[in-house]
Amino acid sequence: MNATYNIDINRLKNDILSLSKIGYDEDTHGVTRQGLSREDYDGRLWFMEQCRAVGLEPYMDGACNVICRYGAPNKPAIVLGSHLDSVPNGGMFDGTLGVLAGLECIRTIKDQNITIDTPIEVIGFSEEEGRFGGMFGVQSMCGLIDRDWIESVTDINGIYLKDEMKALGLDPMDALNAYREPHTIKAFLEIHIEQGPVLDNANISIGIVEGITGVFDWTVRLIGEPNHSGTTPMDQRKDAFLGLCDFAHEFPRIISEDGSDISRLTIGKAEVYPGFCHIVPGAVEFSLSGRDLKPEILNNLGQSCRKVLSSIAREKGLMFEYDENSWLEPKQCSTKMCDIIEETCKALDFSYKRMPSGAGHDTQFMCDVTEAGLIFVPSVGGISHSPKEWTNWRDIEKGVNVLLNTTLKLATA
Amino acid sequence: MNATYNIDINRLKNDILSLSKIGYDEDTHGVTRQGLSREDYDGRLWFMEQCRAVGLEPYMDGACNVICRYGAPNKPAIVLGSHLDSVPNGGMFDGTLGVLAGLECIRTIKDQNITIDTPIEVIGFSEEEGRFGGMFGVQSMCGLIDRDWIESVTDINGIYLKDEMKALGLDPMDALNAYREPHTIKAFLEIHIEQGPVLDNANISIGIVEGITGVFDWTVRLIGEPNHSGTTPMDQRKDAFLGLCDFAHEFPRIISEDGSDISRLTIGKAEVYPGFCHIVPGAVEFSLSGRDLKPEILNNLGQSCRKVLSSIAREKGLMFEYDENSWLEPKQCSTKMCDIIEETCKALDFSYKRMPSGAGHDTQFMCDVTEAGLIFVPSVGGISHSPKEWTNWRDIEKGVNVLLNTTLKLATA
Repeated sequence: MNATYNIDINRLKNDILSLSKIGYDEDTHGVTRQGLSREDYDGRLWFMEQCRAVGLEPYMDGACNVICRYGAPNKPAIVLGSHLDSVPNGGMFDGTLGVLAGLECIRTIKDQNITIDTPIEVIGFSEEEGRFGGMFGVQSMCGLIDRDWIESVTDINGIYLKDEMKALGLDPMDALNAYREPHTIKAFLEIHIEQGPVLDNANISIGIVEGITGVFDWTVRLIGEPNHSGTTPMDQRKDAFLGLCDFAHEFPRIISEDGSDISRLTIGKAEVYPGFCHIVPGAVEFSLSGRDLKPEILNNLGQSCRKVLSSIAREKGLMFEYDENSWLEPKQCSTKMCDIIEETCKALDFSYKRMPSGAGHDTQFMCDVTEAGLIFVPSVGGISHSPKEWTNWRDIEKGVNVLLNTTLKLATA
Repeated sequence: MNATYNIDINRLKNDILSLSKIGYDEDTHGVTRQGLSREDYDGRLWFMEQCRAVGLEPYMDGACNVICRYGAPNKPAIVLGSHLDSVPNGGMFDGTLGVLAGLECIRTIKDQNITIDTPIEVIGFSEEEGRFGGMFGVQSMCGLIDRDWIESVTDINGIYLKDEMKALGLDPMDALNAYREPHTIKAFLEIHIEQGPVLDNANISIGIVEGITGVFDWTVRLIGEPNHSGTTPMDQRKDAFLGLCDFAHEFPRIISEDGSDISRLTIGKAEVYPGFCHIVPGAVEFSLSGRDLKPEILNNLGQSCRKVLSSIAREKGLMFEYDENSWLEPKQCSTKMCDIIEETCKALDFSYKRMPSGAGHDTQFMCDVTEAGLIFVPSVGGISHSPKEWTNWRDIEKGVNVLLNTTLKLATA
């Protein structure tokens, strides 16, 4: 690697703090710019202003994605992007960082008159947080939405996406025009806060994301027999809750035998029926989610869970059934891109770690379209989706410098 | 043992069926005579009629207990008793059996001109099912209630006990006069359905109850950290629910190491917080109850649960706390009485089993006052507190014959 370049962290910090004032709550110190809300839209307009302020010409596509290009108009671009919307009462880095970092990279390249062969775009995607149950912005750009969906989808409060768009003076069906031909994109890079504790705990500055873990969500029921806890001996019970406990107890073994270092099994929700202190539980219903980065391992985890549940049910005289609510395959980031990011980290002498992402990101759709890479910076305490979300500015500086220098490597290759 | 005697099962069956019509629900086929309700009171009046029909002189004490004596007026009596109230929508045997069986024993003794040296009483206790949170009838007779309690206690719907009694034309404070000197009772015998599956599963006709198990009720909390299930690796979680599961998984070991064959541990209720599919549980609150017949074993069970919970909490980085809602010591039935009942079973050639009672019964208070014994007959499928409650008539006949012949052995000794 030749010379490395540096972004202006104060300029970026100023941008992040300024945007966080849109949708800011003085009481909670949280930021609320839910996808396609007025605050979200105001944030987009503010971002377009910042682009114009450095002589760029941003535009908003039919799905509310804001796009801003630097360089030749007709060549395939290196796209730097993330999302501008937030969860209700969230933090100021989630998504925002990746968009403003993209702009900061372009500003640095312009200011320092760095010659590039490939145009660079920054995209502020819309509605990544799933208010309407998907990632509306990036999915529109990838051609993954249709007329029926636009017509029918609502948020959790029953508010229609189409009505929110109309309220902003937009034509919802225009989202269909947001589709972009893959050949117009040379590569995609996103920088995002980790939203987990791995980098912070290990005191590592940069995460190189190898892919987004696949995930299955099941609703599992074990059905036994409700009995009086006083009159029913232990060996004559069909205690559904103990069946669940025996299953959960096997998680370490299941992962060690059939999973990987990064496999995850989670029971986040459990209902016990009838749920009285002195009645042996006759039934339980619980959520089970499994995650891994490799499709075959995710499969094995699912199979192993089924096998263990069946065996416990048989042993305890329970009935076992489950619904598969969803099964999302893992998405792999480009290995080539991971290697280039790694080289950049080495050249900049930053500590780094190859790792999976357990949360979803715009990158997971761009993976299917182009060579895509995702850079993580540490979340203090692993906290996100909270006003307490925090990333140290020196880590942000390092991360965006990795983004800049990786981009330059791609843009001058 | 000399000659044995037999009750008239058809006469008893007729009584049980007749009383079941008071408070009967045509739709559910359940019986509802909740303690101190109009139906309960009507049941008591009906029972007094049956006593009078055979020339006895029943009376109702200040706590609504119906008492009827056969034999000398001033000598200590052998008391045969159980309760006449029911749970809402219950069965026709629970409690009723023990009262009507007592009357049937007296009728048999009268009809067959069997000579007895000791008077026999039958008592139909009131409010055993705990509508007002205790066993009002038997506790009044044992002197275990006071003015404040009578004044303040309500059922789950906020209805005052005192108002229910006034509505029946009774003076609630009269319950204080229901106290009876222990020396007026020579022995107490109750026959009751098992309400559990042990006898039915083992095809045994008679249970000889050695005592009522003690029970502790705890509310336990394990507190960890809620985290995103996607971004938090397994080894960086403080998953409170997995802590609970690891604990429950140890039940067999805890009982095998520190309990007995009849120890019971039950988690009937569990709440997971925050309770979302993709959030690692940050806290759980659950009920834990433990039971055994021996005070020292009950203690050991409690200690062992505390130790296992502390160890798991330490290991998993959780906080562990619990409230002890109640700790009821086991009550022992008279060993002498168990032996006499056993001799009777042998003389009658009935299969029997010495066993604990996991449910509460009037006997548990009479234990402290006199030599008390409790006879179980099988509940088909272990079902009780349900219109499906059933005991075969031939088992009832056997059980009441055990009651009769045990009583005669005591009354002629």
